[in-house]
Amino acid sequence: MSVIYDRVALIGLGLIASSMWHAIKRAGVAREVTGYARSPETRAIAREIGLCDRVCESAAEACEGADLIVLCVPVGAMGDVAAEIGAVLKPGATVSDVGSVKKAVIEAVAPHLPEGVHFVPAHPLAGTEHSGPRSGFAELFDNRWCLIVPQAGSDRAAVERLEAFWQALGSHTDEMDAEHHDLVLAVTSHAPHLIAYTMVGVADDLRRVTDSEVIKYSAAGFRDFTRIAASDPTMWRDVFLNNKEATLEILGRFTEELFALQRAIRTGDGDHLHAYFTRTRAIRRGIIEAGQDTEAPDFGRVKKA
Amino acid sequence: MSVIYDRVALIGLGLIASSMWHAIKRAGVAREVTGYARSPETRAIAREIGLCDRVCESAAEACEGADLIVLCVPVGAMGDVAAEIGAVLKPGATVSDVGSVKKAVIEAVAPHLPEGVHFVPAHPLAGTEHSGPRSGFAELFDNRWCLIVPQAGSDRAAVERLEAFWQALGSHTDEMDAEHHDLVLAVTSHAPHLIAYTMVGVADDLRRVTDSEVIKYSAAGFRDFTRIAASDPTMWRDVFLNNKEATLEILGRFTEELFALQRAIRTGDGDHLHAYFTRTRAIRRGIIEAGQDTEAPDFGRVKKA
Repeated sequence: MSVIYDRVALIGLGLIASSMWHAIKRAGVAREVTGYARSPETRAIAREIGLCDRVCESAAEACEGADLIVLCVPVGAMGDVAAEIGAVLKPGATVSDVGSVKKAVIEAVAPHLPEGVHFVPAHPLAGTEHSGPRSGFAELFDNRWCLIVPQAGSDRAAVERLEAFWQALGSHTDEMDAEHHDLVLAVTSHAPHLIAYTMVGVADDLRRVTDSEVIKYSAAGFRDFTRIAASDPTMWRDVFLNNKEATLEILGRFTEELFALQRAIRTGDGDHLHAYFTRTRAIRRGIIEAGQDTEAPDFGRVKKA
Repeated sequence: MSVIYDRVALIGLGLIASSMWHAIKRAGVAREVTGYARSPETRAIAREIGLCDRVCESAAEACEGADLIVLCVPVGAMGDVAAEIGAVLKPGATVSDVGSVKKAVIEAVAPHLPEGVHFVPAHPLAGTEHSGPRSGFAELFDNRWCLIVPQAGSDRAAVERLEAFWQALGSHTDEMDAEHHDLVLAVTSHAPHLIAYTMVGVADDLRRVTDSEVIKYSAAGFRDFTRIAASDPTMWRDVFLNNKEATLEILGRFTEELFALQRAIRTGDGDHLHAYFTRTRAIRRGIIEAGQDTEAPDFGRVKKA
């Protein structure tokens, strides 16, 4: 592969940045990757495990001379980081991010970027329930989508270069505006996460069923919810606080639909339930055909002989 | 292994019965297994793939002379099957089932069983999103729990024999009364399924986000819900109609909690959200430590090099 950005700076060294590091090395698309994390402990781990060619002591130091800067911090921290690095950015450099919310990130970051720097927000739709610098791996982005959110007046060459970069890391790319992004993600990610957190919280909090029963008997369905409800609390707090409107809209629709199904249960309307449950099978088939999930039963957890 | 029941009859030949067949053969715990399914097509498939030693043309024929009869039909069909087979049951035989609901099944089945027959309801907490006679495999019950629900006056020897049988099929066993079973399952299975069905239905029904977007971008969390929302519609209709009270109780608690989290989002109460999301991580750790789920990221879907 050939180099796409001479120098890449990764700010924040959690699951996404550490996976980007491994995927960048695999693809050979950067000559040098610098990294910075606010916590000294994370920087120490990064140095210990050889994450990034150079781990810096400040975000500004990591960004100096970089051709691509990727903000990989929680959504609520993006503005502060942008303020910190704005002054050292090289003319012609591209600033991007990996935040799960786009409108709020753009509002927080854009004001701090000097003219002559290209701001191309992005969001790789990839992750696991694990977090931190040790959790990354090169394959995380393979066959996943990375959404690119060009700004009014974005330089096309800068946008296409970032798309080529994410494609080299294994992703497909699509372009989308920030508002639509935030609504799509409210459906495919934010509402499901809040619902999973809620269900796990309810199970944990019941008096009449013990935690040990919930744990032992979780294979009956519940355990599927616990994976995404084990995701990073800080990241998710920031997502909900910064995508309020769209998340609350989807949760409102969800509650409405849940009430209708509860009423069907209460009144014994089996036809309504059966029709609803039949319809939802089609989406899973679509996801499998689109290569976005495995068709192996139980996500492949069950090992057949 | 040694034979536990000379003859076992499996009534209903879907995922659970077909997995039981494979697990019974693996363990060598029965000398002959007969099977029956109401649909001629299912019986034909069973014969074609060699499911059961003998596929019968009626439930009564399959049960004649059987030492263990396991009802593997949807919960709503249990009563009719019991009525059909009651007259042919051998004295001393054990009748069991695999229904996800216990109180309603016991009420439907018990009146049809003659004296001298042991009724020992059971529920193996195992399954996948696939259904039908071709979906079974021997490993389905390995390391999963099978809940046994002895009746007042149950013969201890008959209960312990059924437990030995399920243990030979790979399961752990626990005993529980019917009412507690139905509440525990409402938490660990029924409410999560309804919630997953609801979320998938909402995503399918939105005007402003297309189905193709939902499918492409599902890896951001949503796809985890689609697996259990692809489960058998008839089975699940019957579960909800027959465990109304407990399911609606848990859904009530769920809605209450969801409203509290929605309010935290609306008012920007980040501390509440962060504390909630931190608490729910512990349950997943418990489930992994209890051997009820994989610790591999993304349920092991992601293949690291």
